[in-house]
Amino acid sequence: MEKPYVIGIDMGGTNTVFGVVDARGNVLANASIKTAKHNQIELYLDDLEEGLNKLIEDVGGINKIKGIGIGAPNGNFFTGSIDFAPNLPWKGQIPLAELIKKRLGLPVALTNDAKAAAIGEMTYGAARGMKDFIVITLGTGVGSGIVVGGQLIYGHDGFAGELGHTIAQRDGRMCGCGRQGCLETYTSAKGVARTTKEYLSTRTDDSLLRNLELEAITSKDVYDAAIQGDQLALEIFEATGKVLGEAFADFVTFSSPEAIILFGGLTKARDLLMKPIIHHMEKNVLSIYKGKTKLLFSQLKESDAAVLGASALGWEAK
Amino acid sequence: MEKPYVIGIDMGGTNTVFGVVDARGNVLANASIKTAKHNQIELYLDDLEEGLNKLIEDVGGINKIKGIGIGAPNGNFFTGSIDFAPNLPWKGQIPLAELIKKRLGLPVALTNDAKAAAIGEMTYGAARGMKDFIVITLGTGVGSGIVVGGQLIYGHDGFAGELGHTIAQRDGRMCGCGRQGCLETYTSAKGVARTTKEYLSTRTDDSLLRNLELEAITSKDVYDAAIQGDQLALEIFEATGKVLGEAFADFVTFSSPEAIILFGGLTKARDLLMKPIIHHMEKNVLSIYKGKTKLLFSQLKESDAAVLGASALGWEAK
Repeated sequence: MEKPYVIGIDMGGTNTVFGVVDARGNVLANASIKTAKHNQIELYLDDLEEGLNKLIEDVGGINKIKGIGIGAPNGNFFTGSIDFAPNLPWKGQIPLAELIKKRLGLPVALTNDAKAAAIGEMTYGAARGMKDFIVITLGTGVGSGIVVGGQLIYGHDGFAGELGHTIAQRDGRMCGCGRQGCLETYTSAKGVARTTKEYLSTRTDDSLLRNLELEAITSKDVYDAAIQGDQLALEIFEATGKVLGEAFADFVTFSSPEAIILFGGLTKARDLLMKPIIHHMEKNVLSIYKGKTKLLFSQLKESDAAVLGASALGWEAK
Repeated sequence: MEKPYVIGIDMGGTNTVFGVVDARGNVLANASIKTAKHNQIELYLDDLEEGLNKLIEDVGGINKIKGIGIGAPNGNFFTGSIDFAPNLPWKGQIPLAELIKKRLGLPVALTNDAKAAAIGEMTYGAARGMKDFIVITLGTGVGSGIVVGGQLIYGHDGFAGELGHTIAQRDGRMCGCGRQGCLETYTSAKGVARTTKEYLSTRTDDSLLRNLELEAITSKDVYDAAIQGDQLALEIFEATGKVLGEAFADFVTFSSPEAIILFGGLTKARDLLMKPIIHHMEKNVLSIYKGKTKLLFSQLKESDAAVLGASALGWEAK
């Protein structure tokens, strides 16, 4: 009998969400635990194992489960380990896939969260039937998953596709990676907040955003102001879309994808972000590519997206 | 009986060189015709067919030939056609693979010259055994062939891998493509000549290059001056290597290749170019990639390289 379900685990710095998923992308059951409160990996795994066993029981037992897929920060598909993740409580290299395989006795595959999102879009979402596309995740940081000829690009070491760290502006903003001008310093949720602070402190025009405490402004506040027609907020989305559009024009030069798919918190801005991206991508792209690459939003249901993305890996886990 | 040979055709704007190649990459026979003098494609094909038939006879007849591979400007692997090549005498789309297949009765595959070089390196050269690498061709222009998981990236339309047209400097030098700041405006042979003119006209220090006519200076002249210790010429190679190294740091972020392989006329400068490239790539690359990506020169014998690259496609032609 073909096993009908997979488990997806999305490990974030704060929470770990996990669920059981069927072949059509329905999340049948899910739960979560706190990542950050476990300062030892074995204590974390105790909690996770308990949570997973409960879900597995709920859906009819371990014989129904084909495999486990994990999306984790700095997750390496080749080694199954988490390597030096700055936002997790455990240091060094954690052989997570191996540790979970030992506890559950199921095949486990692991990759980073953005690559999991790309596999999720290909399996259940906007990229079904596509062989060449790029998923860009616009969240706290900016990540990417690049699919070429139907295969996710891992590179020789498993770390390909860190497009949030291509240089958008040489000698530009300081990035958490220690370098300057990375795409994510301008286009992540944090990047949008930085742009807002810059605009508010160097300009004098009115804005709804001036009613807020400068240091606490988030990309959500900018969105709220923009939909009320606030000019400064609209210009922030235009500027963010410009940086993304120019970067995407270069990404197209690399792999000429059929589509670039946007995923993550910042995509709630919809057209406010999409219109300037398309405008500046088309303006900057080499003529042979003009009008060819679609810009799409993720089609994964938002509350389930991270678990779905991770779960898609489970079908191929060994 | 396995057919032991393939034919490689390297079509350039000036000359078309072709040869018969065995499985180890030996060129058994070769010849050339002028591309530019044929203002009609059929007249060009008449000459090419005559030349090919002579070579085929020389190596024992058409039953020895497995297929034909062609490297051509703007060549599209998917369609087998040359699309709107600015430097060829024939306009519009030329279904070259089909036209040659009809005349010779052999399987034909076609791609652009830089992708042919990448397949050549994988089949016979520096990339044997590698699954992830990038070939950068530094000639009149800058081209690239990107291999991921053992497969050349074509993209959804056949035009992936135009890395010479990624933006090295936003709003920088005008490029023949109509955009500004493309990598090739700084790092092709022509780009090096442009840098030289800029340096000589904006600086006042002595240089051997001042003995030459400004408009006629080539990258070869800069090399000749640099090996004599000319400071200005050395700085031109440093500046060119810096632009390439910074660009390569971004390319690594995309596909994390095991190696980047340099091919083409400008590579005659060897260490003068390679040392600054390595320095600036390592300085600019994200820390997870540091010290991992090799920089190599092509291992294809220079006089045969273009034909070898094209011929490698012939093994898979259909």
